[in-house]
Parts: sequence; C-alpha cells; structure tokens
Amino acid sequence: MNKQTAQTRLAKLRRQLRRQALDALIVTSPANVTYLTGFLGEDSWLLVGPRTVLVTDSRYIEQAQEECVGGQIHQRTEPMIPAVAGLLNRCKQVAAVGIEDTCTMAQFGAIRKALKNKTLKAVCCPVGPLRQIKDTDEVDQVRRAARAGWTALARALAHLRPGLTEGELAGELESQMRRMGLRPAFDTIVCFGPNGSRNHHQPGSRKLRKADTILIDFGVRRNGYCSDTTRTFAFGRAGDEFARAYEAVRVAQQAAIERIRPGAALKTIDAAAREAIAQRGFEPHGHGTGHGLGLAVHEEPYLAKTAKGRLRVGHLLTVEPGIYIPGRFGIRIEDDVLVTESGHTVLTQDKQFGFSRPELSIL
Amino acid sequence: MNKQTAQTRLAKLRRQLRRQALDALIVTSPANVTYLTGFLGEDSWLLVGPRTVLVTDSRYIEQAQEECVGGQIHQRTEPMIPAVAGLLNRCKQVAAVGIEDTCTMAQFGAIRKALKNKTLKAVCCPVGPLRQIKDTDEVDQVRRAARAGWTALARALAHLRPGLTEGELAGELESQMRRMGLRPAFDTIVCFGPNGSRNHHQPGSRKLRKADTILIDFGVRRNGYCSDTTRTFAFGRAGDEFARAYEAVRVAQQAAIERIRPGAALKTIDAAAREAIAQRGFEPHGHGTGHGLGLAVHEEPYLAKTAKGRLRVGHLLTVEPGIYIPGRFGIRIEDDVLVTESGHTVLTQDKQFGFSRPELSIL
Repeated sequence: MNKQTAQTRLAKLRRQLRRQALDALIVTSPANVTYLTGFLGEDSWLLVGPRTVLVTDSRYIEQAQEECVGGQIHQRTEPMIPAVAGLLNRCKQVAAVGIEDTCTMAQFGAIRKALKNKTLKAVCCPVGPLRQIKDTDEVDQVRRAARAGWTALARALAHLRPGLTEGELAGELESQMRRMGLRPAFDTIVCFGPNGSRNHHQPGSRKLRKADTILIDFGVRRNGYCSDTTRTFAFGRAGDEFARAYEAVRVAQQAAIERIRPGAALKTIDAAAREAIAQRGFEPHGHGTGHGLGLAVHEEPYLAKTAKGRLRVGHLLTVEPGIYIPGRFGIRIEDDVLVTESGHTVLTQDKQFGFSRPELSIL
Repeated sequence: MNKQTAQTRLAKLRRQLRRQALDALIVTSPANVTYLTGFLGEDSWLLVGPRTVLVTDSRYIEQAQEECVGGQIHQRTEPMIPAVAGLLNRCKQVAAVGIEDTCTMAQFGAIRKALKNKTLKAVCCPVGPLRQIKDTDEVDQVRRAARAGWTALARALAHLRPGLTEGELAGELESQMRRMGLRPAFDTIVCFGPNGSRNHHQPGSRKLRKADTILIDFGVRRNGYCSDTTRTFAFGRAGDEFARAYEAVRVAQQAAIERIRPGAALKTIDAAAREAIAQRGFEPHGHGTGHGLGLAVHEEPYLAKTAKGRLRVGHLLTVEPGIYIPGRFGIRIEDDVLVTESGHTVLTQDKQFGFSRPELSIL
C-alpha cells in the first residue's frame, strides 16, 4: 500500500467523522487498521483524530515501522486501554470520541471510565462501507491469491491416493501455500465422503477410499487479502445421486453468477441459486449463497434470503451454493466474483488451471 | 467430555447466575460454549436459563448432535440475534437476562432491541473463573497436545537444510500435526535470524543460512485444548552474543518456574524472569512473561508487571521470557506449567524428547 492510498482513505473517513460530529475515532478491528495504514499486524488500534496514531507494542514495532504508511506510530508500554485513553486525554481539542461498535462491551466500559471530560459513542464504523468497494490493486491481490491457491491445489492433489487422510491433504495444501511464501486465509476444510455434509468439518483422520467424494474449501492470504474457493470432486466412480446433485449445484452457481451486475438486489442472487437447486429436487444449502471478501474472509455484502441492498461496481463476493445429504456427501462450488460496469468477472476461473471449470471426476 | 462434567459445570454456573439475580445468560464465546457443552464448533451460542439450549445452524447441526452433552440443540433458520431473542421472548418466567461482556456493542444493542419486557445486562462471564482451574482431564489434553507437538517438531526439523524457507518449515510442522489427526492451535511462528526479534512475525520466504538462528513458536489443539511452546535454536555455530543471551533467557525461565506454587503473586513470577535477564545485561521482553491456556491460547491468569492476584492449584500457564535484539536475533523459550499442591509440574518438558531441555545447537 502506498502513502497516497492511505491518505485518500483517511481523508474520506475524516469527512464521515465530521458529519457524525466526532472529533476522533478509535479503530479496533485489525482489517480496518490495515485498510487505513497498510499495517498487517494484529493487536494494534488506530486513533484517527487531529493526528493519526497507530498504537502498538514491542511485538509489532518493527513490522509497524516497515508497513505503516497511514500515520505515526506509538509504542505502548502499558495495556491498550490506558494507553489509548492516555493519548486521547492529552488531546484537549478532542471532546467527542467514537469507537467501532465491534468493540466488546467490556472494552467500551473500560475506555469510557478511563476518558476524562470526553464523551464516548459506539458507532457502526464508516470504514466498512469504504472497504466494500475494491480498487484495482485490491482486486489484483485477491486474483493473485486465488491463482496461487489453484497452483497449491494442483500440487496437493498430485498426492491423492486411497488411504490419505483429510488432515494430510489439508496439511499438504497449506504446505504448498507456505512454499510460495503465502499462508492460508482460514483453516482449510477437507471432507471425504459423508463428512462433506458437515459444512465446517475439521479435517481429521478419515482416510480416502477407492470410490469417494472430496470437498475442499480453502483460501490464500496475500498482503492481507483473501481468496476463498471450494471444489468438490469424485475420486473414482461417482454415484448417480452425486452426479445429479453436482449438476444441480453447478447450474445453481451459474444462475447466481449470471445475475451479478450493478443494481441487482442481493436477495435475488441468493434466490436464483436456491431455486435452481430446488427445481432439481434437492434441498438447497442452509447457509447464505455468498459473502463479500477482501481483508476479511467474510464481510459485507452478504447474499442471503434476508439481505437488503443492491450490488455496486467494485463489490467482490463469493458465490457458493451447495447440497448436503447427511450420511452421504456434501457438494459445494465456490468462486470469487467482481461486480464490473458491464456485469461481472469471475476472478477464480483462470483458464490456465485445471480447476477453471469445476471437475466432476479427477480419476 | 461426559454428561456428568457438563452438568457439574452448568450447576456451578447456575448458582452464580442466581447470586447475580439473572434468570438467563447468553453465552457467546466459543470457548465458554465448549466448556459447558462439549461442542467444539463455532458460531453457536448457548442459552442457560430454565433450560440449556445450544443455538446453532445447519453447518454445525451434525457436529452438535455428536458432541453436545450439555443441553438441547436448537437449529436456527434465521440470523443468530432474532433466533436467540425469539427463544427468550417465548420464556415468560425469564425477566433478567445477562450476556457475556465480550459480546460486541452492536450485538448488545441489537439483542436489547429484540427482547420484549426483559432487561439485558452485560456481565463478566462467571465461566471464566471456572475455566481457570483445570481438572485432570483438561490437564491431560494439554499434556497430550504438547507431546504431539514435540513429535511434530522432531519430524519437521529433520527437513532442516540451508535454503529452506520459514514458510516451508512452518508448513512442514503443521503438516506433521495434521498427519496425527490434530491441528495447529494458532498460526505457527517461524523466524530465521533477525526476524526473531519481530515477536509475531509471519513465516515468509526468508531462507535458512549456513549459520543462522531459528525461533519456532507453535501449539497443537486437541479436543479443543491448546499447547503453546517456543524453542530457539542455533543452526550451525552460534555467535557469542547469541549464546550469552540464550543462557540469560534459560536462567530467567528457570527462575520464574521455580517460583510457581499456590499462593505466589502473579507479578512476582513476572518480575523474577525480568530481573534474571536484566542482571545479565540484556533488555527483558516487552511482552508478558506468560498467560493461562486451555480452551483458549490466551486466557486468565496473566503473568505481567501489573497483574493482580495469586496462583492457585489447577492454574495452567505458559512461562515464556525472551530477549529481542532488532537486526540481530530473537530468543524465546516457552513451556506450559501446571500449579500443583506441592508447587508445579512442567507439562512440556517430557524426557522422551530431544526438546525436553532447550537445545543451544542442533547441528
């Protein structure tokens, strides 16, 4: 991230703060701190007031000095809350302080107690709406993260053989990311057979059988930005029910992606995927059809039944319908899609790779 | 976890709720939900009132049915907050509701709005103090997690050679955990050379040199319980400054561990480590000397300068002093220590392993 980008984002935030009659904002969530400063570490808060100050500690000081381009750095030697309150209390021109409403009740109470002659108000952070609309550099990070992910997946799948455990496959995939100098965006999900119907199954000691199904949900983090993709495979011969369900999920994903364009209502995208699955006689996924992604793996906007709002140019979301049959298998296909002026671009279906189209069978 | 343990813990919690005049408590933090029910998934809240109800969704329903021994299961089909508020609103005998003060300000506001004719109060969760004191099964989980960790480390270190990157070593170590059907308790930290002074450095593409230093901070999660250990090695010949600093950290850790016994003040343990390092002419670690661990990697009690309170039988903590010299190296030695009636037991210095004592040089 360059200094210019940080300054532009901070200027937009300051305009929002003035509108809300706030003299300063305490930014506590790591993704928002990264967005405003470029700093990729954790446990560090940002004060945006007359000055912009990143409050960090000895563990992160070297990293902050290298990465932070949006503000000064303050190395605290006391716990976070007295350190932040102390800095604000020394700022006589600050009276009205805001804090992200994602802070905990305990944090809010402790800060309010430590502030002297100031008001404290929890606010829905104005950084969230800014983050929803990705610039070309952010899109590029996600695209490159996804591309690295496919390379890692191709290399990991080369190890497939009956007897390999879910845990070993997940470990191999994450190892391949590490070899590229990258890391998982979240704990890799690998499910064999019936474990696939447990959406957030943790890869365990279940071994791959000669005829089996494989669900892999994984992402790569690159300079803070996440990819998030899922592929489902049949290892050996797929049963008829699996093949029909797979086709239903594929068509559902296509139906949802086709409707992605500026102005489209979020809930109609979600409905399109569900209808396609229901029409083919299956129960649609219990989870949402997709979610925004960027510095967080899950962020606004969400493609869900009850979602309000419409797509805008620069939104970047996953589309991930699924069918889960307890005791049998789970199928999910997930890609990352950018909303463009002319409609959309699928960032994760790169022609260079074997996974550019969902594969039904790999053997 | 068996049903009896869950019932005992829930009974203790209910006594606390009566003392605080609360008719029900909303438990939102995953570790507390696990502690009370045995359920290891995420995104699920527990209502403890006239009945005990785990509120989860389709992603976790199968896992909940297998693991949850502390209460009924409610599969929600709407977002969490309306689902929880709906259940409470149907409970006429519940008037005073508590919620963990680790919930966010936004969650608190939304729940308060959704509750009808009930008061909502954020409380410091009474489960925290219960969790501090480990029973024999919990200690056993951490001990086994740590033992698996040493096995994984031994296997990963067999791959050491000049040119190996930090990321590759971290990937290999985590892969070894996966092969045992376990997973990392947190993102493994591997730092070569000067990167060691960046306490929360993310393993990257820095390659191991012929004469180098290696800091590895890692943990294994087993049935929800975490180990957390750090070892620092010299690869090839260690310089004199490294050797002197290493000895200072080793002595500091020993000084702190020796003082661990029931009744000892937390801050005196922290001070013992710092003094030992300062006496040898080095700057002590900027972070705390240790922290409790169990279902969370970091939990009460903390060994820090400002810590209040004393050790009790059943406390389980890390002891992890360090010396960090920017541009040169970082050294940290971390073990997990249980407070016993007669003093303490170090859970992570198992004689079977080469890492039972910190090693200065491995080549």
